[in-house]
Amino acid sequence: MIQTSQFQTTPGMIDLGIGQPQLEILPHGILRRAAERSLQGIDNSLLNYGPARGDGYFRLALAEFLSRGYGYPVTPDSLMATGGASQALSLLSGTLTKPGDTVLVEEPTYFLAHQIFADAGLKVVGVPIGPEGLELQTLSEAISQHKPSLLYTIPVHQNPSGVTMTESARGQIVELCRQNEVLILADEVYQLLTYHGSAPRPLASFLDSETVISIGSFSKILAPGLRLGWIQAPSSILDRLTSLGMFSSGGGVNQFTGCLVRRVLESQDQENYLKELRDLYSHRVDLLDSLLRDILGDRVSYRKPEGGYFFWVRLVGERDASALLPEATRHQVGYRAGSRFSTRGLFVDYLRLSFAHYGDDDLRRAVERLDRVLN
Amino acid sequence: MIQTSQFQTTPGMIDLGIGQPQLEILPHGILRRAAERSLQGIDNSLLNYGPARGDGYFRLALAEFLSRGYGYPVTPDSLMATGGASQALSLLSGTLTKPGDTVLVEEPTYFLAHQIFADAGLKVVGVPIGPEGLELQTLSEAISQHKPSLLYTIPVHQNPSGVTMTESARGQIVELCRQNEVLILADEVYQLLTYHGSAPRPLASFLDSETVISIGSFSKILAPGLRLGWIQAPSSILDRLTSLGMFSSGGGVNQFTGCLVRRVLESQDQENYLKELRDLYSHRVDLLDSLLRDILGDRVSYRKPEGGYFFWVRLVGERDASALLPEATRHQVGYRAGSRFSTRGLFVDYLRLSFAHYGDDDLRRAVERLDRVLN
Repeated sequence: MIQTSQFQTTPGMIDLGIGQPQLEILPHGILRRAAERSLQGIDNSLLNYGPARGDGYFRLALAEFLSRGYGYPVTPDSLMATGGASQALSLLSGTLTKPGDTVLVEEPTYFLAHQIFADAGLKVVGVPIGPEGLELQTLSEAISQHKPSLLYTIPVHQNPSGVTMTESARGQIVELCRQNEVLILADEVYQLLTYHGSAPRPLASFLDSETVISIGSFSKILAPGLRLGWIQAPSSILDRLTSLGMFSSGGGVNQFTGCLVRRVLESQDQENYLKELRDLYSHRVDLLDSLLRDILGDRVSYRKPEGGYFFWVRLVGERDASALLPEATRHQVGYRAGSRFSTRGLFVDYLRLSFAHYGDDDLRRAVERLDRVLN
Repeated sequence: MIQTSQFQTTPGMIDLGIGQPQLEILPHGILRRAAERSLQGIDNSLLNYGPARGDGYFRLALAEFLSRGYGYPVTPDSLMATGGASQALSLLSGTLTKPGDTVLVEEPTYFLAHQIFADAGLKVVGVPIGPEGLELQTLSEAISQHKPSLLYTIPVHQNPSGVTMTESARGQIVELCRQNEVLILADEVYQLLTYHGSAPRPLASFLDSETVISIGSFSKILAPGLRLGWIQAPSSILDRLTSLGMFSSGGGVNQFTGCLVRRVLESQDQENYLKELRDLYSHRVDLLDSLLRDILGDRVSYRKPEGGYFFWVRLVGERDASALLPEATRHQVGYRAGSRFSTRGLFVDYLRLSFAHYGDDDLRRAVERLDRVLN
């Protein structure tokens, strides 16, 4: 079989471990229109080498889109195009640290970030989080003990736990890091995916502190295949990144897709699609919540998420989620075992379920299968 | 002014230093057709996360295209999609070496490669080349003296010198490097841009030696803005590259553009466009050659290139090309001074002229202006 996507599951398997958009909702029409507009032969910028920070009109359109979505004025000068959030993390950790430095991460956190930091030769240290994310006292002690150069945080609808750092904690955490010269890498890819209530302003709004670098992506609000995201950072940091030979030689990354997405942003297509996604995911959060309550009942405990992609579910009775995976596979259902999200094998009795990749019927079937696995 | 391309020259300036395709010939129609074919809503692969090595059908179509162009069977398993040659160099030097290692480069060579290697913490050492590129004896001595882990070579229509390594030298150089455990990074982006005679088989054809990694790109045969290229390497090396966290997390780079270019490759569009480019550049080589002879005469000496993008021109009488640049700017003409292509300030009396970025009239005007600069 010829491989055309990152994960190819066996037929019949419903893998709620996959944290990716559902294939059926990918926005073909939006990108077809953008390509028609861009490739009329008038504008050569999308086919030529682009500026290191990304096409000027793309950054302008992105700044206006983020200003509306984030609720404060975002400037084009604070933005740089990337090849997605993963490439941004790799670029930032490779450029702003030296091997042997320490990066603090949330415990639990997105497991593939560990690996990107390890690739850069960094020592990864987990800091436990509470029901409102990082806690000032715990973080302060970790900074004193480990003298990190970076803190990696997912401050909103955290992956996997779903927690969101409060407005008041944000200012205190930024100030703590500023005083200790710790750069904050804020992975804010879920900022615009809030379904209930409203999210606090992103950590990106603390750019003036020269302490925060925010990472965003079109993977979860438009299409992952575009491999297009952005870094929002003080200009001094963007200058350090673009001084790399890779940019002097090849220009900015993903010029073509940046110019296409400029057209998507300039039309109403991005905002309309984002609204559709919010409605869809909001519905699925309610559905999965009621399925878990009705079918799994008191065998699980969790907090209903207010945004993002995930339910972080604890198995009551300290059951081992990894050990149950072979049984789950036999029942054709999948999830990510909690221990994968830990730097030190914690969260053994947790599992992460994504509601992004499957529609209503599959979500129902998946929970029915989990019911049999947990029996 | 909003920046939309990597270099923006002042109006009226003709900068033959720019080694980029002419804007007017960029293939809008080809990519518009590819986008129409790809975005009909049937095939989701281009909008989804892709496999780490690149979309399977893209790699299949690329293998067939290269088999025809290179003249021997290229397999999809030896190919991996990249974000262009510069990103490939950055990825390879960051993954296959450790800081402090030495990389040998040709003297002269593409100046921005120096910087990419330096970013990876490598020590860059130049090895003089002759009229047929790297010479076995000189290279052997440099390997003994510097114990490099990498050799970076542009074996065909070299940038800037235009020289091509002979068929017989290729086998000997690969064997020398194999014996000394030096990995060869062969930058073969000009392999398919041969205008007179025929190029030897690429170094990519020596993959079985486990000593060669070949880098290719669509920047010079389709459009640089796509930021799409490929690495051709033994599977063991591709596995090392794709084991990086960046790929586990985000999937392959540039999935969307890879899937578009698959359609370009599957149609006859790529081969037809490449033939147009060869005809156009072949004409321009002849034109620039006759302009240089007729107008600059015995004030310059050079060898007429058989492919690639560049004339490597020596100023007779040991004149300093860098020192003449302000005068050239006053006459609204530009070039790259030769010393930029050296690791140690050699080639002061050389300049590199590209015939890719400008049409006939501009080439004529540029040489007329150079005439005044050299008076």
